[in-house]
Amino acid sequence: MELEILRHSASHLLAHAVKRLYPDAKLAIGPAIATGFYYDIEFSAPITMADFEKIEQEMTKISKENLKIERFELPRNQAIELMQEQAQPYKIELINELPDNEPISFYRQGDFVDLCKGPHTNYTAKIKHFKLLSLAGAYWRGNEKNKMLTRIYGTAFATREELDAHINALEEAKKRDHNKLGRELGIFMTEENIGQGLPLFMPKGAKIMQKLIRWVEDEEERRGYVLTRTPFMAKSSLYKISGHWDHYLDGMFVLGKEEVDDGLKALRPMTCPFQYIIYKNGVKSYRDLPIRYAETSTLFRNENSGEMHGLIRVRQFTLSDGHIICTPEQVRQEFKNSLELSYYLLDTLGLREDITFRFSRWDPNNTDKYINDPKRWEQTESLMKEILDGLNIDYVEGIGEAAFYGPKLDFQIKNVYGKEDTIITIQIDFCLSERFGMEYTDADGVKKNPYILHRSSIGCYERTLALLIEKYAGAFPTWLAPVQVVAMSLTDRTIPDVENIAQELTKVGISIQKDIRAEKIGYKIREAQINKVPYMLIIGDKDKEAGVVSVRSRKDGDIGQFKLEDFIKKIKQEIDTKSR
Amino acid sequence: MELEILRHSASHLLAHAVKRLYPDAKLAIGPAIATGFYYDIEFSAPITMADFEKIEQEMTKISKENLKIERFELPRNQAIELMQEQAQPYKIELINELPDNEPISFYRQGDFVDLCKGPHTNYTAKIKHFKLLSLAGAYWRGNEKNKMLTRIYGTAFATREELDAHINALEEAKKRDHNKLGRELGIFMTEENIGQGLPLFMPKGAKIMQKLIRWVEDEEERRGYVLTRTPFMAKSSLYKISGHWDHYLDGMFVLGKEEVDDGLKALRPMTCPFQYIIYKNGVKSYRDLPIRYAETSTLFRNENSGEMHGLIRVRQFTLSDGHIICTPEQVRQEFKNSLELSYYLLDTLGLREDITFRFSRWDPNNTDKYINDPKRWEQTESLMKEILDGLNIDYVEGIGEAAFYGPKLDFQIKNVYGKEDTIITIQIDFCLSERFGMEYTDADGVKKNPYILHRSSIGCYERTLALLIEKYAGAFPTWLAPVQVVAMSLTDRTIPDVENIAQELTKVGISIQKDIRAEKIGYKIREAQINKVPYMLIIGDKDKEAGVVSVRSRKDGDIGQFKLEDFIKKIKQEIDTKSR
Repeated sequence: MELEILRHSASHLLAHAVKRLYPDAKLAIGPAIATGFYYDIEFSAPITMADFEKIEQEMTKISKENLKIERFELPRNQAIELMQEQAQPYKIELINELPDNEPISFYRQGDFVDLCKGPHTNYTAKIKHFKLLSLAGAYWRGNEKNKMLTRIYGTAFATREELDAHINALEEAKKRDHNKLGRELGIFMTEENIGQGLPLFMPKGAKIMQKLIRWVEDEEERRGYVLTRTPFMAKSSLYKISGHWDHYLDGMFVLGKEEVDDGLKALRPMTCPFQYIIYKNGVKSYRDLPIRYAETSTLFRNENSGEMHGLIRVRQFTLSDGHIICTPEQVRQEFKNSLELSYYLLDTLGLREDITFRFSRWDPNNTDKYINDPKRWEQTESLMKEILDGLNIDYVEGIGEAAFYGPKLDFQIKNVYGKEDTIITIQIDFCLSERFGMEYTDADGVKKNPYILHRSSIGCYERTLALLIEKYAGAFPTWLAPVQVVAMSLTDRTIPDVENIAQELTKVGISIQKDIRAEKIGYKIREAQINKVPYMLIIGDKDKEAGVVSVRSRKDGDIGQFKLEDFIKKIKQEIDTKSR
Repeated sequence: MELEILRHSASHLLAHAVKRLYPDAKLAIGPAIATGFYYDIEFSAPITMADFEKIEQEMTKISKENLKIERFELPRNQAIELMQEQAQPYKIELINELPDNEPISFYRQGDFVDLCKGPHTNYTAKIKHFKLLSLAGAYWRGNEKNKMLTRIYGTAFATREELDAHINALEEAKKRDHNKLGRELGIFMTEENIGQGLPLFMPKGAKIMQKLIRWVEDEEERRGYVLTRTPFMAKSSLYKISGHWDHYLDGMFVLGKEEVDDGLKALRPMTCPFQYIIYKNGVKSYRDLPIRYAETSTLFRNENSGEMHGLIRVRQFTLSDGHIICTPEQVRQEFKNSLELSYYLLDTLGLREDITFRFSRWDPNNTDKYINDPKRWEQTESLMKEILDGLNIDYVEGIGEAAFYGPKLDFQIKNVYGKEDTIITIQIDFCLSERFGMEYTDADGVKKNPYILHRSSIGCYERTLALLIEKYAGAFPTWLAPVQVVAMSLTDRTIPDVENIAQELTKVGISIQKDIRAEKIGYKIREAQINKVPYMLIIGDKDKEAGVVSVRSRKDGDIGQFKLEDFIKKIKQEIDTKSR
């Protein structure tokens, strides 16, 4: 029996149990999904995860009753009548929308009947190894104008072993989930009065962001980028030139008041037009190209509330953005350079091994989403394909995944639950330089429109940080750790030594915290360990006498006594080489 | 004769000349001001500064005619009749508003009569040394619903020498004006499609900003601050708690769409509530205080178009913001620390000598603008006065200049034209910690509301950069210069050497540009000099042979040949010590 059939049947088992326990519950839809199944249900009073045990017990009971699962069909009017008897308005809505030529089928198990295409397993006893996992709100048909239903997620497997393995993996994933661990470690928080998708970085998170941003900006400068710093809003006229007003308005935040003096404004969803305007300041010659503009750019996208998640998908984010403006001859080399920069950054962070590639192309059958110029799309996509193949990049193709102005190479990565997101993109833009009137004078004296690569080097810092939290389960490599060392007094007599050590380490740029509380040393160590601090320095009377510090590493425990200067040398080396 | 009387008479001379040249011009008001005088006039066709010569010639002619200037009074109906004859509607509006008990006085010189309180000089020949300076638009009565008039600015002095000195000083100021020089040097630009008050920092400007921000963040960290990074928008409910919704809404950008899920949002005008929310995450004890939160914080204020100026007053800016949360016993020391941090930064930048202080207090007669709690205002203002006097700070008092939540110490500084602005403030807040429910557990176990210092260390980076451009006329100290060195080839044969030198300098973090064009060396030097680059390295065949570089300094010209390593040592020393 296929897993999908089993899981779909498990969702019926869930619905059956719910109807027994909550007779007035209204059922919407209950499909199998990649990781299990769910059912969307309207309850007359809210339920919580505390109710899962009771529901699972009822499911087990129905399973043991070993009811036969039978399919039958009804003509439309009888189908509606049956669902009216059972007071299932969502099912009636679904029946009314079924095309005339399609049979209307139901599945029955005991006293429970559900509108369903099937297929299903033949007896309820076949569904033995299941578990309810979580609750979420879900609008009926995904439309926020409709009623919010309760979605119950669960999973099911053919064997107890597989189910247990899955549950264990989920438990492990939860421990690494940045949305949980990031809050526990004091990296970020959210707040009702600020709003969804607007995380606040607390001092530890802000420190990591600062380190990442400085590192990327410096690396880009070394590779010939120049920095820009452009405003976060502009008049609608700018977005009309760029095409965002026509192709992206739904995702933008528009500012309320029509300014008397200055026209309607909106927060920027992308940096492109701002850097193009800087390019246009002053005449450019082929000798000036390539120009590589980088910006640590804050962007705003009005995501739907259902789509937001921790630091992965937010409404305000900071992108290591940039645009390379070059001649046609330079495109290949610049594309390769961009790729290499991202490889270097991903390697250093330890994320490269997790990357897969997607070549995101336009959809010629859905031209509304794109600048509709099929010939240029074809040209640019074959140029990109040629570059990718020349670099031996192993990619899948994503039709309908391009930007509205050109195709993309997407660096894909999975979060701890297996959900895939784009971390980095490199895009070839064939039209915006013309739209913006960007030109350069070529060697032959003729004015031409340059090519543009839109690229990110390490992606959006919020998302990258989320992935790093999950990758390292919060135990960041020393160079990135917001607190690199905790210095602890073993007795009150060594408090002045701890103070001195803290000063010495601060002087050489190491982030240190002091723990001079009158607590037991075991307690202090445990706390530093929970906070995933790479090194603990413990200073007792004997260390003081010997002029050393006792060092514990987060990973290896006690690693012995060091002269302070030797410890500094060791940790500096680790930091400078960005060792993992 | 007082200068003010002379200048007021010069404005009449201007109006007289204008009426002779443009008989249908309508006169509004023409006062003396600190730097000269102006007259607001409605012209039937626009005039330009090219018309000034003609107007000045007519003014000189009237001066030479040596007309007697005579005062006379009229009853209201005759006054209105006279101004009707002369077709002067603005004067009639003014006459109608004069109170009954006030005499309605006019001044006559030849065929020109103007409604005026006086006093004036007695003959037009007394007004000899004057000059028209600039044109501006000005709404009648400063109200943007009224007609836009043409304001002609001029100045006048008792002697030719004083006038010439003033004109020279103005010319000098114009050369330093950041709004002109900053654009010429490629530091920033603005663009019609983006909007007023939204400067774009080009690579040179972005580089200076990066240096300033990193320097301030690092210095703050050394002084015990922790960084935060909080979102740029929040729901209205947050601003209702903070009081911004009631006291500051006019200055805020509100986002258009009422979100279905999330409530109306606005861009933040201040960082305070965001850092308070971070404080509130987790229980705090008196042992945790003081907590010093710093943020390189982007803020948005919806300034009126008339108020915006270059980088000095903008709609989006980045503040070196921060809040110190402390016990009552810690306020004095923390205030002193904040002051010392700002002194250190201002000293390093060379701006400290230009600072004056203002103690900004509330206005008990205009309580609408403030949180209305007279007793707390009195307490807090006397605490602040005591601290300021204890630190021997020489301040003036500004009644009605406080923040809505408490009194401020403002660091005042003048731009190149003498206009004063606030660069830094330190504020004592007596009410927001209570409003936000911020608490700490004191040594006695009682929960208390902490004190809050709102402070900036170096102010708003855009404004500080504007002041630095004007202070140094664009010739930034080497450590701040966006390009620190230009390496120039004297002949094509030394191009590879220039490339090598550029690599060496880049490696040690020095910002270098290459000039390997086939241009004369004099041309290259002139260009680097115009761009105010601190050092020029010239590499000719002889330098190449001798293994040295010929060094020119922006300030001292040719300073001889250096081994590259010695030059690096010299410039690194200058950079590391932030020498001016």
